[in-house]
Amino acid sequence: MPFIHDDFLLTNPAARRLYHEYARDEPILDYHCHLPPRDIAENRRFQNVFEAWLEGDHYKWRAMRANGYDESYCTGDVPPYEKFMAWARTVPYTLRNPLYHWTHLELKRYFDIDDLLDEHTGPAIWERTGRMLASDELSAQGILKKFNVRALCTTDDPTDDLSCHRAIAASGLETRVFPTFRPDKAMMLNPPQAFNAWTDRLGEASNVDIRNLSSFVDALTRRHDYFHEMGCRLSDHGIGACYSRHCPDGNAAAIFDKARSGRAVDSEEQDAFDAFLMLLFGRLDAQRGWTKQLHLGARRNANSRMLERLGPDTGFDSMADGPQIEALATYLDRLDRENALPKTILYANSPACNYTFTTLMGCFQDGSVPGKMQFGSGWWHLDQKEGMEAQLNALSNTGLLSRFVGMLTDSRSFLSYPRHEYFRRVLCNLVGRDLEAGELPDLDMAGAMIRNICYANAKAYLDLPF
Amino acid sequence: MPFIHDDFLLTNPAARRLYHEYARDEPILDYHCHLPPRDIAENRRFQNVFEAWLEGDHYKWRAMRANGYDESYCTGDVPPYEKFMAWARTVPYTLRNPLYHWTHLELKRYFDIDDLLDEHTGPAIWERTGRMLASDELSAQGILKKFNVRALCTTDDPTDDLSCHRAIAASGLETRVFPTFRPDKAMMLNPPQAFNAWTDRLGEASNVDIRNLSSFVDALTRRHDYFHEMGCRLSDHGIGACYSRHCPDGNAAAIFDKARSGRAVDSEEQDAFDAFLMLLFGRLDAQRGWTKQLHLGARRNANSRMLERLGPDTGFDSMADGPQIEALATYLDRLDRENALPKTILYANSPACNYTFTTLMGCFQDGSVPGKMQFGSGWWHLDQKEGMEAQLNALSNTGLLSRFVGMLTDSRSFLSYPRHEYFRRVLCNLVGRDLEAGELPDLDMAGAMIRNICYANAKAYLDLPF
Amino acid sequence: MPFIHDDFLLTNPAARRLYHEYARDEPILDYHCHLPPRDIAENRRFQNVFEAWLEGDHYKWRAMRANGYDESYCTGDVPPYEKFMAWARTVPYTLRNPLYHWTHLELKRYFDIDDLLDEHTGPAIWERTGRMLASDELSAQGILKKFNVRALCTTDDPTDDLSCHRAIAASGLETRVFPTFRPDKAMMLNPPQAFNAWTDRLGEASNVDIRNLSSFVDALTRRHDYFHEMGCRLSDHGIGACYSRHCPDGNAAAIFDKARSGRAVDSEEQDAFDAFLMLLFGRLDAQRGWTKQLHLGARRNANSRMLERLGPDTGFDSMADGPQIEALATYLDRLDRENALPKTILYANSPACNYTFTTLMGCFQDGSVPGKMQFGSGWWHLDQKEGMEAQLNALSNTGLLSRFVGMLTDSRSFLSYPRHEYFRRVLCNLVGRDLEAGELPDLDMAGAMIRNICYANAKAYLDLPF
Repeated sequence: MPFIHDDFLLTNPAARRLYHEYARDEPILDYHCHLPPRDIAENRRFQNVFEAWLEGDHYKWRAMRANGYDESYCTGDVPPYEKFMAWARTVPYTLRNPLYHWTHLELKRYFDIDDLLDEHTGPAIWERTGRMLASDELSAQGILKKFNVRALCTTDDPTDDLSCHRAIAASGLETRVFPTFRPDKAMMLNPPQAFNAWTDRLGEASNVDIRNLSSFVDALTRRHDYFHEMGCRLSDHGIGACYSRHCPDGNAAAIFDKARSGRAVDSEEQDAFDAFLMLLFGRLDAQRGWTKQLHLGARRNANSRMLERLGPDTGFDSMADGPQIEALATYLDRLDRENALPKTILYANSPACNYTFTTLMGCFQDGSVPGKMQFGSGWWHLDQKEGMEAQLNALSNTGLLSRFVGMLTDSRSFLSYPRHEYFRRVLCNLVGRDLEAGELPDLDMAGAMIRNICYANAKAYLDLPF
Repeated sequence: MPFIHDDFLLTNPAARRLYHEYARDEPILDYHCHLPPRDIAENRRFQNVFEAWLEGDHYKWRAMRANGYDESYCTGDVPPYEKFMAWARTVPYTLRNPLYHWTHLELKRYFDIDDLLDEHTGPAIWERTGRMLASDELSAQGILKKFNVRALCTTDDPTDDLSCHRAIAASGLETRVFPTFRPDKAMMLNPPQAFNAWTDRLGEASNVDIRNLSSFVDALTRRHDYFHEMGCRLSDHGIGACYSRHCPDGNAAAIFDKARSGRAVDSEEQDAFDAFLMLLFGRLDAQRGWTKQLHLGARRNANSRMLERLGPDTGFDSMADGPQIEALATYLDRLDRENALPKTILYANSPACNYTFTTLMGCFQDGSVPGKMQFGSGWWHLDQKEGMEAQLNALSNTGLLSRFVGMLTDSRSFLSYPRHEYFRRVLCNLVGRDLEAGELPDLDMAGAMIRNICYANAKAYLDLPF
Repeated sequence: MPFIHDDFLLTNPAARRLYHEYARDEPILDYHCHLPPRDIAENRRFQNVFEAWLEGDHYKWRAMRANGYDESYCTGDVPPYEKFMAWARTVPYTLRNPLYHWTHLELKRYFDIDDLLDEHTGPAIWERTGRMLASDELSAQGILKKFNVRALCTTDDPTDDLSCHRAIAASGLETRVFPTFRPDKAMMLNPPQAFNAWTDRLGEASNVDIRNLSSFVDALTRRHDYFHEMGCRLSDHGIGACYSRHCPDGNAAAIFDKARSGRAVDSEEQDAFDAFLMLLFGRLDAQRGWTKQLHLGARRNANSRMLERLGPDTGFDSMADGPQIEALATYLDRLDRENALPKTILYANSPACNYTFTTLMGCFQDGSVPGKMQFGSGWWHLDQKEGMEAQLNALSNTGLLSRFVGMLTDSRSFLSYPRHEYFRRVLCNLVGRDLEAGELPDLDMAGAMIRNICYANAKAYLDLPF
């Protein structure tokens, strides 16, 4: 039997029925990913599996570094084939790491390869994947069709003109592609040169002359409007902690002016400005009926030497362990008091936040929308079987799993679509175990819940224009 | 087979033997609950299952809000039957939440109902439960008899005259009902009006003219004495964190005077006063041989809008995530140095505290009483299968499960008694799994341990006067 | 079937094959323990099982205190046999605690005893163990041979002359015994008398006249060199948190002078000095190619009364719960920037640190050595089945289990060698479960990984001179 077979991860009869009868055939709504819209618009084809797999995947780089490969094999100038072979030699060392499952699920689903990747099978796999990537079926758009992706939401800067989204919409592509409003750069006051360059781009994009905080806010609001017109219904924030303390408009204006005048702000000013903007973004999302995503608690750029050499998002981020609840509670409460708390998805970076987030979330369910406050799927380092199960259990035990909007890829790669399948198998296995243990009364009832988690809940909740 | 059957949650043969031979028939000692003594004294009858189930249950309200029901269906003015039906419609969405198990266990044990509650079965269940609640068997006292509750401890304010406890004792009710000394209001200096009104009531109750801190302490001590006479052997505190830093008597007196003069205290003063009183309460409990319960780490009233609208304890509390150990260690150590550390039960609000609490607790086991320092059953949001198993495992791995005083309902509802059964099933299932895996040597030995955890340990440890 | 049988803890067929075919016969490299080198050099014989088991084991003392035994039975003056019998009576109360497994595994492996220890079997077990401890087989050196310990690393103060290590090396003992450089006392400035006495000993040992910080550093460096000559390749630090903020040389010199002049330093000075020395120790280890061990996050001496009575390390330590990541990230980053980050093993004292440590660790894998940054085996209170499984899972899911250097005893007792067997059984059981569930593709591949974790990884990684 091949490693990836029909019942992969489905260790009990109920799980197998749940997966095959309820989960498998549901379409995909990938409401949070980092796919480049240009690749979709241009229907990119990948030259080889290195491009598709290794060019930008910091999970794999981390594994290769841990396995003793020099940086030249990860982000450096070693030729693609050699990098691929370094990866092939690393794969057997990733046993029990999600990379081992992902790798073979991707080989199977995209390339129908049953071989286990290692240094012996590497060369033939390089050949076969290269040949197949040249086919229409594995072009960017071909992949979306192959995996039955009904819609996906990319992650976009407010200054983006969304021309690729426009082109995709015009192309009649069956998969609907929507932008997500991710204004992290509006909050990065340091270094001021970068902030000012970005603010200037924002001014151009919004056709606003940004002279002060008020016009900055105006520009952001216009972009928010524009994103809405383009079908955007989600915002996203990748921040350490949520909110410090209230920052009056006057203070925010002074901080803004300081940064605009080219002076670096201190960390207290940065925090205050963050707080100011996070309230603004909350209000905007609430007004428009959007869903706000909060990715909280990463400790980024731990390795400053590598940050200087490679820039951010290259595999040098860890989980933080400071408290989150006080700041997050204050933020949600403040918006709620104004009747400006949008639908919100909280993503936890550390397992220590699972139960604290789900219980806090429950304090802001207001009955306006089923599952208004959501606890997002296992994120980043938690996007693996144990992490997913912990997320599902915390949500189940202190909230309503039945209302869960389910999985997203959060990925930069077109080869990540089997993550949805992986999640569904984990979910079915977990719920199947409950059924076998008599903890749930009825397979069809559980199956209906699972089907909704796969697609219908997200469809109804996010209210995307399709 | 009905959902709730004889072997519910007992997934292995050893578990079934442990439960049926050792656990099932043990009586109940519910040493911590929030039942209204008046309801027992007056042998309250419930008009309908709404009154018994939904009138004050914030777990259910949270689920209904998360399921999209407006507040009017939870705490508002929708008629009882419609509220019940909103709950009935919500129940199928609680799959994997403890509410699903509790609901059907309660329907089975109180009303012998095997149907699963939903919008279709709701009307008939409303009828049947209503009819049965009119019977003697399901009066407040009938329920205590039906569930073999040998004794229970309510949770009472020091100003309470305990007249209901007196009446119950005089009535010859088989279930012994004892008060618990919960002086949280003695520590709430803000708002001063509320504090002063409470302090005045304390003065009356204790027959002490409270002019200063010294007479305040005297009044509290007299109430402690009075509670002792009335059979009280436990105190309880619901506090965020335990103890900040030492507060000399002089400072405490000044803070007290400030509050008494009607001025709000700041958070530093509040913390200092808390520290002062917590030492006092520790000493009082130690002198009397009581058991102190510390419910630590709730982050209460996260939703200030709803606090203003509905008051506290309405389902808007979450777990906190700040550090607990330093404060708690300092508190326990300080009492221990004075030879004034009472028997203590620590309850953790967050799973992150499980191992830190059990290991700290082990530093204060002094050999005077077996299991002097106890780690309490899964509390609040942790009162569910996963939470219980985590509590049992942390205690087992770093302490003596054999000395554990076991389960309590912590409930405001007379319909919560099957929680003891639920706990016992979870415990037997867990220990049974160990037996089947060969991790424990002998079923009878494990059975004896379980039997003690069900009743005898609490009976011996708490030393209640019965 | 006896409790400890060939397949103890191996609950599935794959686990049994993994253990018996891959793990069981691997030798032991006990790279971190607290065995007294003198006992090895002098080939100590134990008079009775009390000496071997109870004389210094704070795990057992904690259990006995929790079971209601007075301190006189733990560390006090009750005669050895009575202490042993108190322990025998406590053992049945340790069901589900690792002590229950350890105790019977030790009885079986050292004394071939199948009886369960309790008050009835205690007297015969006392007799039999006493007789057997008189044999050559159970002398200190006999035990090392019996358990196939290829090498072990003790834990030593920099002032130690390592004469016992010299004697052992000269004796031709098959087990190689290396020292570990543990300079905790160099960092304990308070009380100054103790610090100065220690510093004077350091001066003598290094033949350096310690007049100031510079000569203090010189003396430490010389001892580091000397330890290296004696085969030392690991350092170790037992510290609360890792590093506060940068301490310039001038400040460190002033703090040093203050302590040398007999004045106590404040906690800020202590932290600054710690930070200064931790950088020094990092550089020294990196220069020499050593492995640094960081034991982080214990909250020591919670019970000050017992600290005054018995001194440290007597069973009054708990897990801390404050944040670790910011300090640890800063420390590792600072060394990494200087190209002075040694191979490092992080040990977590609390389960809350598992995932945060493994993800931070991954930010400093630099490809220079496979598995350069290691996440150490479940430490202290986490050295039990659940703790080990959590450690293995966190490492697996976010790093490379295949590169793991595996188990150590961390023990003061010669009777702890079955801990390696225990770990291997837990590991094989866990991986076997994955195999049975189809989560791993191939038993032999998993078996090779396990074999490496048992011995070869540590052998290659630590690069000890044998």
